[in-house]
Amino acid sequence: MVDCIIIGTGAAGVSAALTLKALKKNFIWIGSKNLSPKIRSAEKIANYPGLPQVSGEEMTAAFLKQIEGEEIEITEGRVNGVYPAEGGFNVTCGGDVYESKTVILATGVEAFKPVKGESEFLGKGVSYCAVCDGFLYKDKAIAVVIESGEEAEEVKLLAQYARTVYLFVLKGGAEVDLENVKKIDGRVSEIKGDMRVRSVVYDGTELPVDGVFVLKQAVAADTLVYGLKTEEGRVVVDRDCATNVKGVFAAGDCTGRPFQYAKAAGEGNVCAYSVNNYLNALKK
Amino acid sequence: MVDCIIIGTGAAGVSAALTLKALKKNFIWIGSKNLSPKIRSAEKIANYPGLPQVSGEEMTAAFLKQIEGEEIEITEGRVNGVYPAEGGFNVTCGGDVYESKTVILATGVEAFKPVKGESEFLGKGVSYCAVCDGFLYKDKAIAVVIESGEEAEEVKLLAQYARTVYLFVLKGGAEVDLENVKKIDGRVSEIKGDMRVRSVVYDGTELPVDGVFVLKQAVAADTLVYGLKTEEGRVVVDRDCATNVKGVFAAGDCTGRPFQYAKAAGEGNVCAYSVNNYLNALKK
Repeated sequence: MVDCIIIGTGAAGVSAALTLKALKKNFIWIGSKNLSPKIRSAEKIANYPGLPQVSGEEMTAAFLKQIEGEEIEITEGRVNGVYPAEGGFNVTCGGDVYESKTVILATGVEAFKPVKGESEFLGKGVSYCAVCDGFLYKDKAIAVVIESGEEAEEVKLLAQYARTVYLFVLKGGAEVDLENVKKIDGRVSEIKGDMRVRSVVYDGTELPVDGVFVLKQAVAADTLVYGLKTEEGRVVVDRDCATNVKGVFAAGDCTGRPFQYAKAAGEGNVCAYSVNNYLNALKK
Repeated sequence: MVDCIIIGTGAAGVSAALTLKALKKNFIWIGSKNLSPKIRSAEKIANYPGLPQVSGEEMTAAFLKQIEGEEIEITEGRVNGVYPAEGGFNVTCGGDVYESKTVILATGVEAFKPVKGESEFLGKGVSYCAVCDGFLYKDKAIAVVIESGEEAEEVKLLAQYARTVYLFVLKGGAEVDLENVKKIDGRVSEIKGDMRVRSVVYDGTELPVDGVFVLKQAVAADTLVYGLKTEEGRVVVDRDCATNVKGVFAAGDCTGRPFQYAKAAGEGNVCAYSVNNYLNALKK
């Protein structure tokens, strides 16, 4: 069991990781080895103290170099759930389960809201995890909703199982050149079914499917952590970045505006100190 | 009248200034052109995202270069008070008065607590401002308490007026080579008097003086702003870094732990956005 699991590799996650390392905590940091597509795509960042007029690519490069220099590792993956467990939490990621005393949510802000039926059918045909649930759809027809090219590998994995993959790309830029992957130019507006998923609706068309995979870079934090208090989609935290769930802290865009790198980095730092204080209090 | 006055040139002030500039606000930024002695003196900073393993000098140099690149000016000075005024605040600094709609307190944390009698005799022989009050002590004997060499120029100014300056240096490192400046190796523990200051006490010795100048880098924020809510010496702020005084925001060490550069920069950023929102609301 580690001291902390950080979920997310944006500026908040980077800052939390650097500070946990400085505090000599052992932690697992889950996200993307490319850090954040959102940072990368920034054209020019004028107001981050210390990095004058950097592009998103330059900021990413600076962060990656620093992380490497501090010998901090990123565990590539997307977290599917955070569950209370003896002495802390079980965090499921792909097919793996990690145990941790605390969790820092640095999951960013969902660029795309859940569609009608998504929450209702979660676990009943809707999945956020290709690695975990892909095998359930052998020779079946599935819809896969992805954000961009970042998720192409997971689509290929699903295509190894499924008979047909109907691919919906939210932002464009993804090409998967496989015979059984059919890219559909439209946006899923509803997931329908009875006890399980039966179809998806897009642009007035109803398409029969056996399952729906929703693979987005940021999943709403409150779908990850049961009972997490949110307001207007933002995780509610206090000045110590503590959420209403003991041992779970949050930083960055997921806690609300301003959606800024300095603010995210600041909160990541605060989270790391709050985790440290929380662990010290546990020992008493 | 400007949109905002930022008080303090540490990491919080730097971040607030960069973001106000990006938001195209007009503002006055009061502090030191050397930024913060506290940053400068840091040996190694391991966890500030973007600047790997920098010394305090290197971080200062990076900040200064960025500020210059953005054509942001620092008004050298120490603020003595923030007073409510028509449409905002009057901020007094040395002999000058600046008018602003809002104020960001980024004053840092007081390294040295006020001594007994300091608040009691403020304005009755105790002063925080050499430029404002020096002339009052022509041919008199005064005690001057300074933090370090940073305040040497102000001591020289006072020595032009006073008959004798008894100089107490809190951290050392200050040399003022003037005939009427007597450096005393000790620490003032109390300021005594009746209607006005009559003496200072140090190491059991009582020294008759007509006035006491206390020239520290950070003055407690609640002595600057009347009615400002603090708890255990820290300015109480909400998640938007708003204080209990409308139009006054606070960032960095003055709002409490962790005393960290990333946290300070994050709050400076949040303050700038809160000022922006506040100004927009005023227009409605």
